[in-house]
Amino acid sequence: MRIAVDAMGGDYTPGIMIEAVQMALAEIPDLEVLLVGHTGKLAYYLERYHLAPSKRLELVHAATVVEMSEPSTTSLRAKKDSSITVCADLVKAGRAAAVVSVGHTGAAVAATKVRLRTLPGVDRPALATLMPSITPSGKAIVVDVGANTECTPANLAQFAIMGELYSQLMLKIERPRVGLLSVGGEDAKGNDLTKNAFQILSKMPINFIGNVEGHDIFNGHCDVIVCDGFVGNVMLKSCEGLARATFHWMKQAFKKNAVRFTGALLAKDAFQDLKQISDSEEFGGAPLMGIKGVCIIGHGASSPKAAKNAIRVADTFLKLGLNDKIVQRVNECGVNTPNGALLAESADKK
Amino acid sequence: MRIAVDAMGGDYTPGIMIEAVQMALAEIPDLEVLLVGHTGKLAYYLERYHLAPSKRLELVHAATVVEMSEPSTTSLRAKKDSSITVCADLVKAGRAAAVVSVGHTGAAVAATKVRLRTLPGVDRPALATLMPSITPSGKAIVVDVGANTECTPANLAQFAIMGELYSQLMLKIERPRVGLLSVGGEDAKGNDLTKNAFQILSKMPINFIGNVEGHDIFNGHCDVIVCDGFVGNVMLKSCEGLARATFHWMKQAFKKNAVRFTGALLAKDAFQDLKQISDSEEFGGAPLMGIKGVCIIGHGASSPKAAKNAIRVADTFLKLGLNDKIVQRVNECGVNTPNGALLAESADKK
Repeated sequence: MRIAVDAMGGDYTPGIMIEAVQMALAEIPDLEVLLVGHTGKLAYYLERYHLAPSKRLELVHAATVVEMSEPSTTSLRAKKDSSITVCADLVKAGRAAAVVSVGHTGAAVAATKVRLRTLPGVDRPALATLMPSITPSGKAIVVDVGANTECTPANLAQFAIMGELYSQLMLKIERPRVGLLSVGGEDAKGNDLTKNAFQILSKMPINFIGNVEGHDIFNGHCDVIVCDGFVGNVMLKSCEGLARATFHWMKQAFKKNAVRFTGALLAKDAFQDLKQISDSEEFGGAPLMGIKGVCIIGHGASSPKAAKNAIRVADTFLKLGLNDKIVQRVNECGVNTPNGALLAESADKK
Repeated sequence: MRIAVDAMGGDYTPGIMIEAVQMALAEIPDLEVLLVGHTGKLAYYLERYHLAPSKRLELVHAATVVEMSEPSTTSLRAKKDSSITVCADLVKAGRAAAVVSVGHTGAAVAATKVRLRTLPGVDRPALATLMPSITPSGKAIVVDVGANTECTPANLAQFAIMGELYSQLMLKIERPRVGLLSVGGEDAKGNDLTKNAFQILSKMPINFIGNVEGHDIFNGHCDVIVCDGFVGNVMLKSCEGLARATFHWMKQAFKKNAVRFTGALLAKDAFQDLKQISDSEEFGGAPLMGIKGVCIIGHGASSPKAAKNAIRVADTFLKLGLNDKIVQRVNECGVNTPNGALLAESADKK
């Protein structure tokens, strides 16, 4: 499997990405990497990390990088020579089968979405992310968390399939429980979008458990949560913000007196455990699903291990034939484009 | 000020509500309460709590109560004689100026929304809630968290005014920073609704700081966060779910060995502090703003103190003339209905 790795996007690149690639090459015997970035800079760092270009590790030049502070569309407009855009182009040209980046999420979505297009029968790609949850697997997957700000009911039906397959292939859950994120558990609750999506989802041969609420993401009630990308993104960032604020408040509370402070020191490892629950190290990154090719986007502050795992996830997706399975399942469920849209229309009329 | 208090809705009623009323009557000299519920039951409990009906405390009969498990519309359809519906009717008839309930939120919203209608110039009421935040006030207000699943840009503009006034009157913030909840900080980010709302908000004489993201609710970046009720409700419930899950994970982590467990025992008070941050005891409840009358909805598991504070908030709203101020400010900002809708239409065409 040949994977294009964006060596430049992210907070600690190229260093952490070179370490990640080193680990990944050792772990996956048939892996080949196209390391994309400023080749002069990369050559310098490769030497520092005692790594040399080889048949399995080729450098590909990209003059620029999309900075975290720039708008998402930079990858398509002002910086067509950026590392993420070059990665997408390598997949488009058939030189690589997947893209892995820990850079600007929006830029990666924009570049791969536009350059690679969607799979046959799939209308829109979706960004999936794993949230910590009180399930046996410890994780629930939410689709979409930001690839689309406007969605149709048919889009949500397709997202459900992507989430189901992710859950089956990566978390080994045989019959994932799929919930539709809404404002109440009753069937009739929701906005126009979710009400129409509910109609479609309840007719699909998936384990659809109906509407779920925000707290059901964490309480183990379901394995896959489907929502539009606007709602998913607000949810994700609110929860990230709350988690950060909680650690802040906790520190403040511990500092109030010596007894508390001593207690906190003794329980220190427990807080490390807690931090790890919200870390996505093990799972490596958020896949953009539904495009022709595989694209895994890791957190900007990913560790080498997290970035290595993102490469491993991309490799696994390719080996398991995730994309073929998405195409097949979308057809099987009768929600392939344009079928899904017609279904949605008839649901709307009811 | 005369306030109709729903004595039946909620997890620990009528007990906690009777205690709350007792405290409120002692705290607010000019307060009069119409205690609404099954009068037989209430009379029995009043005696137990050494309280007697008086000029300031009158019992009003309501045969039923909307249970937490029932749909929101129960208050309007199957149970027109429920305590919350009777409360709304008392305001409608001019016998009380406000409703306070710790019962079913959806039922309270439905009953007061439909029975009391909106203020002149206001198109839709909104449910406001205080979230813990790293601001000097320690709180940020989010409007709407669930009264409306579909909103127009003009609705959001009116919600901004309600949030601004709440922040000014209750949190004493002179010029609250108002943010529009979206998926990115840049002006052009968002869905159709927020993009159009952005146009209107940026022209209003309020301290509009532009788009904000989920984490900005907690990081002290703004005082008022505006969103549609679907997004706000998902955000609120996700955060509640995460907070609960965090305490669960924390307990598990502490139990792993004796050192951690001892540490946790020593730091016990700190966790109490942390719990209090997320508790809304001090602020008493979520107001449904924009209706003719005042309606404060407390948490189902409210303590007597929290319920008492909900009564105090209602009393303060009445005394400060919140509703007159909403009407005035909505007009002042040119977003009164139907003006706001026309504004939105012209923004849409741009």
